[in-house]
Amino acid sequence: MKKVSRRALLAGAAGLVAAGKTAAMQAPESPSDPSKVRGKPSKALGQRAPSEKPQRQVRSGAASGTPHQDLCGTITPADLHFERHHAGVPEIDPKTYSLLIHGMVERPMVFTLADLKRFPAVSRVHFLECSGNFGGRTGSAELTPQQLAGLTSTSEWTGVALATLFREVGARPQAKWFLAEGQDAALLTRSIPVAKAYDDALIAYGQNGEAIRPEQGYPARLFLPGWEGNASVKWLRRIELSDHPFMTREETSKYTDPMADGTARIFSFLMDARSLITYPAYPVTISRGWVEINGIAWTGSGKIARVDVSTDGGTTWSQAKLQEPVLSKAHTRFRHLWNWTGGEAVIMSRAVDEAGYVQPTRTDLIASRGVSSVGYHLNPITGWLVRPDGTVLYKQEPWG
Amino acid sequence: MKKVSRRALLAGAAGLVAAGKTAAMQAPESPSDPSKVRGKPSKALGQRAPSEKPQRQVRSGAASGTPHQDLCGTITPADLHFERHHAGVPEIDPKTYSLLIHGMVERPMVFTLADLKRFPAVSRVHFLECSGNFGGRTGSAELTPQQLAGLTSTSEWTGVALATLFREVGARPQAKWFLAEGQDAALLTRSIPVAKAYDDALIAYGQNGEAIRPEQGYPARLFLPGWEGNASVKWLRRIELSDHPFMTREETSKYTDPMADGTARIFSFLMDARSLITYPAYPVTISRGWVEINGIAWTGSGKIARVDVSTDGGTTWSQAKLQEPVLSKAHTRFRHLWNWTGGEAVIMSRAVDEAGYVQPTRTDLIASRGVSSVGYHLNPITGWLVRPDGTVLYKQEPWG
Repeated sequence: MKKVSRRALLAGAAGLVAAGKTAAMQAPESPSDPSKVRGKPSKALGQRAPSEKPQRQVRSGAASGTPHQDLCGTITPADLHFERHHAGVPEIDPKTYSLLIHGMVERPMVFTLADLKRFPAVSRVHFLECSGNFGGRTGSAELTPQQLAGLTSTSEWTGVALATLFREVGARPQAKWFLAEGQDAALLTRSIPVAKAYDDALIAYGQNGEAIRPEQGYPARLFLPGWEGNASVKWLRRIELSDHPFMTREETSKYTDPMADGTARIFSFLMDARSLITYPAYPVTISRGWVEINGIAWTGSGKIARVDVSTDGGTTWSQAKLQEPVLSKAHTRFRHLWNWTGGEAVIMSRAVDEAGYVQPTRTDLIASRGVSSVGYHLNPITGWLVRPDGTVLYKQEPWG
Repeated sequence: MKKVSRRALLAGAAGLVAAGKTAAMQAPESPSDPSKVRGKPSKALGQRAPSEKPQRQVRSGAASGTPHQDLCGTITPADLHFERHHAGVPEIDPKTYSLLIHGMVERPMVFTLADLKRFPAVSRVHFLECSGNFGGRTGSAELTPQQLAGLTSTSEWTGVALATLFREVGARPQAKWFLAEGQDAALLTRSIPVAKAYDDALIAYGQNGEAIRPEQGYPARLFLPGWEGNASVKWLRRIELSDHPFMTREETSKYTDPMADGTARIFSFLMDARSLITYPAYPVTISRGWVEINGIAWTGSGKIARVDVSTDGGTTWSQAKLQEPVLSKAHTRFRHLWNWTGGEAVIMSRAVDEAGYVQPTRTDLIASRGVSSVGYHLNPITGWLVRPDGTVLYKQEPWG
């Protein structure tokens, strides 16, 4: 910012006139003085400003990540919500969509989309995260927040409580698990404890106020707040209740965690607390003085209780300010003012949730698992190296 | 929904197969069985499902309204946020954008967009409503929620507290008002009490997690939570502090409320409590049985304390369920289960806010103003007539 002299002001808001001239030279597409040109008329659908181009990072045909470095607050715009699918995004006709619930129930039933929408609805803000959401494996330091953790997003989800449907079909007391089956070509299936249905599971059809988007399971999906994304089966067509888990491919050969004894942990649904500084982060360059470090924190266990920020490689920590209200199982924006004097520094954040879980270092995380190679459920403290020239790089441990 | 016989189930989820066949006949664009076709790959930007086409209602070149009948929850997608402008939507280059703050200050200053973003940020969910948001004047009964109240929307807004900037420039204690001036061709100007800046005003640059959209003031706007939309000057280029209001055109010849004595009330900033049932509403047709009546309620005075719903033309009222958490100065979704037995009925909702204000009938509203012709700040209880055939029409008083 710059101070304005009284003389310049008397000469007619000279600062603004100068700004207009610069605009004319650098950006011919914007009028040099927008106040002299009639603007565009109203439209049925808004569009982003031409200079704003946030985009998902397409990792493969089967995944794309949210550009956290471009975002503020907590809501992820629906067209930037991460996607992950195993056989592409199917196109499903909402008029003929149906969901079958059967198995250990009194009354097997088929619900159309209109049926689902007729039940009492629930809207809640929740994050959704892929259990494979850790992009720090390449060894490169030129990684953005999007590359490191793009597979998590937050929306206001609307749907019917699965508990409501289970009461409608008369779920039997012996039913302890249910199979959720998708309608995409992957026919993704997962076994979920019935207790989750009676806790907070939804059959979601709304996302950020509108119909759920195709990549997120249109017209309806299972939504399991705080649990790994793949279990929240999209394009849901069938739920079967049983007294045992179904041991499907996606919970036996995949989405399991190797253990020290050579076996694998299965049904590791919970997404533990994680946080990530999204500013400053690669590839921005900062200048000296006050910098508001900010980022997102989330946990599958409920609310974020605290986020600590370190600007000295983890030696000392300060408590960050949390955006209110802090919502359960939702991205929480944290902010911390830092006076950067120009020296090299490693900054990082550490989330603590209401269950008392503390986000670990990668070293501690791997030690606690007892194996060196872990693929899913990686939520280590993430460091950023701020160099004297103000550039910022991803910084793996050791930070010291 | 329909029950499924055990025989049909044993024959191989026959309900789903039948559904697939219907799809093939009615909607050739969707595959008859999506599970047999590989879906689309991931993309940099998501799009709505082809069958979902929510759109703003373009009222004129200068206004368009949010399709509340298509929405659920509380967040309005940014491309469906209502717009209202006086000379079109300007295109402003963010690189040369600047905001001048001067007048009764110690240090007049010019802030670039980068300057604004460097200050500590605040994110809050708030509604924004045009003071002219009442579409019930035509006498027609075929009016949608969008036509009746499309000029209100809710977003998560991010920006710098105006109080922070006023401290930065050293606002003088004598300064009691400030002028906000837009950079569009209308050069919209409004006088705002300085007290609002120290209460909760923002200079907003973020909306639902991303950069604010052009129609909402890109790259930065004034945002005055709970106050009439036009005072939250968009495309903000100048703020001048003074010890008196500036008596501009938009606060003298327009945006005033006629009084019984022939004078006009000016600076009527506050948007009082209002609610609107968005389902069932024209043009849907409902069927008998349980119907979840739902809609939105909001107030500029803080939080919605209660929403009452009547299904008998206002004779008796029941308390609706509110979506949690109820946020201050934000749309609040309310829901109420109603067993419709098929008779003619007039349904309506009535908001009560934490300040104790009760949404009035139109008759009471006009009586309290003492004039028969009122244009701005109309927030009457809105009735919907449900006819025996299940069709729904807008129903003005008297409800009978």
